[in-house]
Amino acid sequence: MTTADVQINPNRLLEDFNELTEIGATAAGGVNRLALSNEDLEARAWLADRFIDAGLVVRDDDAGNLSGVLPSTLPGARTLLLGCHLDSVPDGGRYDSSVGAVAALECARAISEARIELPFHLEVIDFTDEEGCWQSLFGSRALTGTLTETYTSDKNADFGPFRAALFRAGIRPSDIHKARRAPQTLMGYLELHIEQGHRLDQSGVDIGIVTDIVGRTTYDLTFYGEASHSGTTAPEQRRDALLGAAAYICAAHQLAREEFPAGTFNCGDLQVLPGAYNIIPAEARLTMECRHADKDRLADMETALIRLAQELVAAHNLSVNVKRVIHMPTAHMAEPFVEAIANACRRLDVSCMPLVSYAGHNAQILCDFTATGMIFIPSVGGISHSPKELTEWRHVVIGTEVLLSSILQLATSTTPSSCTSE
Amino acid sequence: MTTADVQINPNRLLEDFNELTEIGATAAGGVNRLALSNEDLEARAWLADRFIDAGLVVRDDDAGNLSGVLPSTLPGARTLLLGCHLDSVPDGGRYDSSVGAVAALECARAISEARIELPFHLEVIDFTDEEGCWQSLFGSRALTGTLTETYTSDKNADFGPFRAALFRAGIRPSDIHKARRAPQTLMGYLELHIEQGHRLDQSGVDIGIVTDIVGRTTYDLTFYGEASHSGTTAPEQRRDALLGAAAYICAAHQLAREEFPAGTFNCGDLQVLPGAYNIIPAEARLTMECRHADKDRLADMETALIRLAQELVAAHNLSVNVKRVIHMPTAHMAEPFVEAIANACRRLDVSCMPLVSYAGHNAQILCDFTATGMIFIPSVGGISHSPKELTEWRHVVIGTEVLLSSILQLATSTTPSSCTSE
Repeated sequence: MTTADVQINPNRLLEDFNELTEIGATAAGGVNRLALSNEDLEARAWLADRFIDAGLVVRDDDAGNLSGVLPSTLPGARTLLLGCHLDSVPDGGRYDSSVGAVAALECARAISEARIELPFHLEVIDFTDEEGCWQSLFGSRALTGTLTETYTSDKNADFGPFRAALFRAGIRPSDIHKARRAPQTLMGYLELHIEQGHRLDQSGVDIGIVTDIVGRTTYDLTFYGEASHSGTTAPEQRRDALLGAAAYICAAHQLAREEFPAGTFNCGDLQVLPGAYNIIPAEARLTMECRHADKDRLADMETALIRLAQELVAAHNLSVNVKRVIHMPTAHMAEPFVEAIANACRRLDVSCMPLVSYAGHNAQILCDFTATGMIFIPSVGGISHSPKELTEWRHVVIGTEVLLSSILQLATSTTPSSCTSE
Repeated sequence: MTTADVQINPNRLLEDFNELTEIGATAAGGVNRLALSNEDLEARAWLADRFIDAGLVVRDDDAGNLSGVLPSTLPGARTLLLGCHLDSVPDGGRYDSSVGAVAALECARAISEARIELPFHLEVIDFTDEEGCWQSLFGSRALTGTLTETYTSDKNADFGPFRAALFRAGIRPSDIHKARRAPQTLMGYLELHIEQGHRLDQSGVDIGIVTDIVGRTTYDLTFYGEASHSGTTAPEQRRDALLGAAAYICAAHQLAREEFPAGTFNCGDLQVLPGAYNIIPAEARLTMECRHADKDRLADMETALIRLAQELVAAHNLSVNVKRVIHMPTAHMAEPFVEAIANACRRLDVSCMPLVSYAGHNAQILCDFTATGMIFIPSVGGISHSPKELTEWRHVVIGTEVLLSSILQLATSTTPSSCTSE
């Protein structure tokens, strides 16, 4: 049997999808399967059973990442990871949390059944807490050794419930560091995911080949003015922190739109003190983030947005405190993986387009560690993280076929070099 | 003895002020004397003792308003109220809550000692909860019969603690309506207060003669957009409630400044849902107020501000819900009272200027009920509702002298007709 004869079984794929999306199903038609919850653990047990049924080697690591491995007989073979996550956001949809798992399972099963000898171990891996119910991208951070102690214990936060949930799932916080792998044991990382945006859906293209994942930086900006009587304070003596923050929100959106059209900008929250009708606001704390696929442009964007805040507070007789809260660097997919996916699409006669991912993924963590690729399938209306999340079933099938074909492309090509990233 | 010989005793006034401001004194040099608190009740007991020492008739009504009366022997005499309040805002200053009380007490005492026969009963009255720790202008609303049941019980609010505080102060919520007076028993209402603004202080004038108190309307404006992923949502699909609210805050301040320069406008609070870095805000609830001394201009201002909100939400693809929360009508002081105060200043050779009050006062409630006048003395730097609140002692003395002289002016002039107000 040659690689050209390997086929996925769409009926079995649908059966798996239906079984898996029953676990944590909500009345609204979505899935509620928070990381380490009963539903998440039940889904893992289900997946482990499917691994056993398929004759894969089941393993789990000290961060709770669950794998089914199809070993290669090649001496010194490295591992190609097929990533997925079973956890969902609260009241999420059926596709974000399930498509990647059933597709990766089906590919490993099809190759195993076809008795194809791969030059690498093929490992389907479910990562713990991708969505960040407790700590965003927890499992992939553990595997790459980038999980410090502050992720499970921090003097300034109550991590007791998180540690209890880890224990309940059989994960000892003190042993998480043992989940770290040696990068030279890996050949690469590949994942099928829904786009969560509307570009594929709107353009009628079946497959998105991810080229980059945007970098993301979040800030807390606190504007300080002076509380004073709203009726008796003279206009020229007003030092209104909320007015300053509002002017900033408008100007920052305009700046981002005009000067950084390839990036995204969001102000997600604003809190005001003391917060009464008749008191001029003394303090306004703004929560904002910016994303860009180009790390230099992201840095420029951050610099411009902070400079804007400083200019505006000077004009409004206020002061501002700037706190950089989270930074996720931009990630670039490995060229051989992008090519393998493109070749797979050509071979299957499936339409495809390169895409930048504006959402975060485990690939963003893995990319610093090993060669990485991602395949996107369309989200109807671009809706995600919602019970209304929908991907047409034919796209799940096409995506799984492209994933299988990409694996086989990688098997026949030279072992790719490590991905570039910053 | 003639009225020209009546004098206040500045030493006794200072002694009273020092004793009274000890009650609820804070480390920061201010006063914390919330309505119905132990400190407020202690201050009332102190004032009742001073009434007794001065030979005044002590009375209290069913809303907890405490009075010391110097009765007139004239048959059918009406009453001139000398208003004050002993309660403070949280961590307030020493002058807002104390100057009016010691000044009114000193005037009644001086007239009593001089054995001057007034053609009206003179009643020093401390009103319950002027500042609105529980319900703003509670005592004056009760006296004028404008306090409905919703002020002490409301299905949508927990008024249990308020009712408990009333009971503890000896006030039965079910009897508050008995505090209502008949307007024909009153001759008028006069109050000395600190300005709480900077106009007197900046212009070096000793006395402000209040001509009007601004009307005030408060609104809750809720802007509705749609929650969505901050990274993957296309710019043209963003329906950002916070961006709409921010644009409104900027535009509304500009509109108020340019088109209603004699009014004031404030946005005091803003709350955002769901309030995360990476979610486009679905809801932004804004708390705002406008004030104007001219009732027609206030109505125009409200109309313009609501129209602006409706225009902006249309432009931002949002919707808005407008809720008018509180309306306090504009109030006009009675011409004979304004004249009596002006004559008093002339007679005492004290500088004075007419002023509009941008803060609310019990006079605003009384004005619909009886002829009303207010005397302002300077606030250093315009600071109020703060431990930094300061009025130079000489201004407290001058204000008390003007208050005494105004009472005597009113005693010699014709009984004034009822004030005009809307």
